[in-house]
Order: sequence, then structure tokens, then C-alpha cells
Amino acid sequence: MKTTEVRLGSRSYPVFVGEGILARLSGLLTRLGFSSAPVVVSNPRVFKLHGDSLRRSLEAAYGPAPVVFIGDGERFKNIASLQKVYQGLIRAGADRRSWVLALGGGVVGDLAGFAAATFVRGIPYVNVPTTLLAQVDSAIGGKVGINLKQGKNLIGAFHQPSAVLSDIGTLRTLPSRELASGLYEVLKCGVIRSEKLILYIERNLQAILSASPSALEHVVLEASRIKAAVVSSDEMEAKQRMILNYGHTVGHALEAATGYRRFKHGEAVAWGMMAAVGFGRELGLLEEKSAQRLLRLIHRVTKLPTLRGISPGRVWNALGRDKKFAGGRIRMVLLPRLGAAEIRNDIDPANLKRFLKNFIESSSNI
Amino acid sequence: MKTTEVRLGSRSYPVFVGEGILARLSGLLTRLGFSSAPVVVSNPRVFKLHGDSLRRSLEAAYGPAPVVFIGDGERFKNIASLQKVYQGLIRAGADRRSWVLALGGGVVGDLAGFAAATFVRGIPYVNVPTTLLAQVDSAIGGKVGINLKQGKNLIGAFHQPSAVLSDIGTLRTLPSRELASGLYEVLKCGVIRSEKLILYIERNLQAILSASPSALEHVVLEASRIKAAVVSSDEMEAKQRMILNYGHTVGHALEAATGYRRFKHGEAVAWGMMAAVGFGRELGLLEEKSAQRLLRLIHRVTKLPTLRGISPGRVWNALGRDKKFAGGRIRMVLLPRLGAAEIRNDIDPANLKRFLKNFIESSSNI
Repeated sequence: MKTTEVRLGSRSYPVFVGEGILARLSGLLTRLGFSSAPVVVSNPRVFKLHGDSLRRSLEAAYGPAPVVFIGDGERFKNIASLQKVYQGLIRAGADRRSWVLALGGGVVGDLAGFAAATFVRGIPYVNVPTTLLAQVDSAIGGKVGINLKQGKNLIGAFHQPSAVLSDIGTLRTLPSRELASGLYEVLKCGVIRSEKLILYIERNLQAILSASPSALEHVVLEASRIKAAVVSSDEMEAKQRMILNYGHTVGHALEAATGYRRFKHGEAVAWGMMAAVGFGRELGLLEEKSAQRLLRLIHRVTKLPTLRGISPGRVWNALGRDKKFAGGRIRMVLLPRLGAAEIRNDIDPANLKRFLKNFIESSSNI
Repeated sequence: MKTTEVRLGSRSYPVFVGEGILARLSGLLTRLGFSSAPVVVSNPRVFKLHGDSLRRSLEAAYGPAPVVFIGDGERFKNIASLQKVYQGLIRAGADRRSWVLALGGGVVGDLAGFAAATFVRGIPYVNVPTTLLAQVDSAIGGKVGINLKQGKNLIGAFHQPSAVLSDIGTLRTLPSRELASGLYEVLKCGVIRSEKLILYIERNLQAILSASPSALEHVVLEASRIKAAVVSSDEMEAKQRMILNYGHTVGHALEAATGYRRFKHGEAVAWGMMAAVGFGRELGLLEEKSAQRLLRLIHRVTKLPTLRGISPGRVWNALGRDKKFAGGRIRMVLLPRLGAAEIRNDIDPANLKRFLKNFIESSSNI
């Protein structure tokens, strides 16, 4: 088991990464100072896979823990599920000394974290992410929330967890498409901060995609370190944290323009990174060799869902609604070189619009 | 117009107290840095009284501002109203640069503040409280939230406003029972921190209750100063802020035991202060002369709703559910002398239970 840390003064917390963490949970939690059973939030699919292991660990330390189930999937990240968690907390007799443990992917973590952020004005929560995407991205950094029908994450808070416990073993049961999708967020971490991580993925791609524990532990730990460092330097996304959005400006717009049905999040980010590479290349930012290298690796990870049939106009409109836009000016993360990102506020909208149309049309044939 | 300040580093904010602030709102808001129209949250009753004045001020500076109405009364401080505010924000095209202005009493302020705390992970809000209770208590300090059917303020956050604008003129339209009820929270501020404020109320009670602008400005300002100072020293209620709960342990329990129907909040706090005085006297804490002086003033403010028919057992059970209880031990704010409060963690439950039974039974004949 390896550790990294999100450093935010009195709200600092560890991120544990390793195989078999679920089985050793009670020791970790008692060392973190938790002396009573949590209210567990999960979904039935995840709990069927890992619930027994979690339950055994928790019971050994605290006796039985109540479990609240929410539906499986992004569409359940809503106010109705939130109310279900609130009612579960009430039923469990929760008060200010209670705490929440989230077992699942990003939906469970974000929603359980938001419930914890708002129950009696905030109680602690521990995140036990069970997908690659959640382990390297959503579980770290304290962004919690739910969706409205008008958009994702429109309601939320910053509420840092007390710990993130990433059991690599849970990734073995992950569908291969989920694993590949999550790997694009890992790759993004390398792209913005660590050329070494890019190199590792290039050299160990097959091991990662076949869920080799040592390869997964390595990439989860490295990506977690990068995310933790960025969040430590800018919790509230005043500036630096925005670099984590590399590939997300276009990625989010592609997801929205296709009703969140065609792409897994990481797949949309992969397309978004390709768009950002292409746009950066046009601006003369990234040298050709690095651009080619990154595009090659993105294509090697998996065959992405096509852009065919997506209307550039709808993508452009979705871009305008994206929260990353500030005051009509377009902000985008671009790469001066691999392993380094910079936030640009000077993007000419007309230029980006024209580029995007070409990008979607020329990529539709892939 | 007078000013005090809540000092919390980069989140510090002014509290303005004075007559005619609504008419001068636009100047204050632009000086605070707001450059676009807010989304206004109010209720129809308050807006009928003060909406025109607010609208004129805002339009002069920003053009028309959208208004979201929620129902009037504590029962509307719920998830349904919260969703109404979220939808109003969406309809208004709100994004991260938007802000909320709450015009109303505690229900409007708490709910609008919570909506602002959670919309796109937090946008600014300005509180324009229109009741005495809200001006001296709920509007200051950043406690925002909503009720669940199982209890008040079970869902919430700490989210400090950008400014509190207390127009004394709005208190002229307040029913006299509301004014008297709010005055008990003012008195509480004196009791825990300022014997001078107690003296002022003793000497100017009729002027205050007849809504004299200068008397109201004085007590609102002094109570705001006290609340602001306490919150500045302990935003998250780690310890010192608890002294604001003087009279609230028993007060909340009386409200809950009567289904929030018999008492206005301040009236329940008045009974709660009398109980705390009586209990403190039993413990030999408060000298007899001060106890008598405080009880006399509480009775002079107004004739309180009776305790008759309230079951001591139900009050005791409600006490146990109160969030102010930590780990089964009872915590209570008591007075060593007038103008000074201390937090006691050593209250013997059996002792308090017996006292409370006697208190309710003997007070029922008043």
C-alpha cells in the first residue's frame, strides 16, 4: 500500500492506494480516528461485488453499519437520491458526530460527499472509490454535488473527505471499457504534469488494460499524486486547479451534445484532448512530434466511439453553457509541451468555433 | 447608517444598520463590487411591502432583476422551495458570476443563502433581512439551510454573506408580536455579552416596542455587533459561538414539543432563558439579584404564550434530539453574571430533567 496526501492545513487527508485495502479497512479507519460505524452509501451493483468485504471489515471494528443504496448510473445523481441519503442518515439516528463512507464510483462518491457536506452543516466522509475514474479523479479534491436536469454538477460544494481509500483490487471487476475510459484521466494527469507518467503508460499499456495490480497501483498512485498536488495548491479552483480540465472544455460539450449517452466521461475527455492538441498545434503551441506522440497513445488505449452525426453547432452551444466560461471570454487549458499545461484566457471564440467544426467533421470519418 | 463587521479574513463582510437602506441599496451594492443584477429571493408578503423600493434601487444600478418567490412561513423552508430557487437561478441564466439577494425574514435568508452556497458550488449572496429576529440573529454568521420533516436546519452549510443590509424602516411593518419575539434575541445578546445593552432595553423598552427608529437602530446595531464579534472569533461553532445558544437548549425543545405552533422562536427562547436562569440559580451560579432583574425584564417585554399542557416528558425527549447534545452528555450555556456566559459540559442529566419538570409545572400557572 502506498500513500499520498492532499495538503490543506487542518483539512489535509491521506490517499491510500493498494491491493486489498477493503479487507484492511478497519485498521486504517480506526487509525484515522473513527470510533463508531459510518453510514455507508453505495449502489446495489457495487455492493454485491464488494459489500461483503466492506461489511466484514467494518463489523470487526464497529459492529453493524447501516447501508443506504442509491440507483446505479449518472441519472441517479439527483435530488431524489440525495433525499434518500438524508432519510437514511435520519433513520440511522445520525447526528453531528456521525460520518459517511462512500463505496462506489463517481456518482456514489459525489452524492454521498454532498450529503455529508450538507447534513447538519457538514459531517466527515471517507471515499472508497471502486472505479479507475473515481480513484484518480472525482474521489480526490472535495468537489461534491449532484446534477439538475439542466446540467451536470449544477448543485454542489467543496467538502474535502477525511481519507480516500483506493483498493486496486476493486478494479479487477471493472468492465474493460470503464478501465480504458478511466485511463484517459490518468493520461491527462501525465499530459499536464508528468511526461514520466506518459512514458509509463506507453510502455505498460497492455499490463494496465489487463488490470495488472502492480501496473494499476503505479498509475493510480501517480495520477493521485498529481491530482493531490494540484488541489493542494488551489483547492477552490481560483486558477491552477483549472489545468485538471485539460481536454474537458470540448469533452464536456461532446457529452452534453450527445445527451451523455454516446461517450463514457473519459472517452469524451480523450476526444477533448485530441481537439486541444489540434487547436494548440494551430496556435503553434505544441511541437509536432509531441502532438503526434500524444495522439498515437490516445488511439492505442481503445477504439473511441465515433463523432459521426454530431452537430458542430450543438457542441458549440454546449460549450457556451459550460461553467468553464467566464464572462463570455473563452478559457482553455493548452500545452506548451508534454507534462506542462497553461491556462489561456485569450482564445478567440470565432477561431475556436471554426476549428471545432473542422475537427468534428474530419474526425467523423475515423 | 451605522456599520459593524464580521471579521473572517478574506471572507469578512459589513453589516449595515439604518433607516432607509433599501432606497440607497444600489450605491451600497456597487461599492461592494456587484456589477450585475442579482437573482432576488423573497416571499409575496414581504415583497408586497418592500419589493417596489428594492426594485427601484436595483433597476437604477443594474436594470431589471429576476425575482423568485417562496412560500411565507417556516414550513416552506424545505427541499421543494430550494428546488424552486434552483430553477429560478437556471431560468435567469445564472452562472458562477451570478449572485443572490435575499429579501425577507429568517426563512428567506436561510434558504436563499443555502441555495447560493450550493449553486455551482457556491455563489455570493447578500442578505437584506426584514424582521428584527433576522436582522440581529439569522442574517449574520453564515448558518444557512433548510428543514427536513424530522427536524429544523438538519440540512445546511456555513456560507457567509457578502454583506448584511438591515433597513430599520422595514421593522415598522412588523406585527408587534414579531417585534417582541425578536427583542428576546436582542436581550439574549445583552445577557451573554453586554450588561449595557440590557440596561438600554430596560430604559427604552416602550420606545423599542413602538418601533422608534432611533431605539431600534441602537438595539439592532448593538446586537449585530455582539453576534458579529462572536462569529468572528468562532465561525464554525467549535466552542465560543455556542454562547449564542443561551436559552436555546430548552427553547428549541419547547418549540419542538409544541410542533412549532405555540411559540414564536424568540418567545420560546424567552422561556428557555428563564429556565436557564432558574437552573443556574439552583447550581448557585447567578446571584439572586441579577436573576430577578432578568426575569423581570423578560416578563415586561410581552405576555408569553403559556407552558400549560406541555408534557415535560416530550420536552425532555426533544432536548435529547437537539443537535446541541454531544455524545449523550448535556451541554448548556449558563451565566456566571449578566453580560457573561459560559459553556458548561458537566450538566447532570438527571438533575436537569428534574428541574425541567418542576419548571414547566410551576410555570404553567403563569
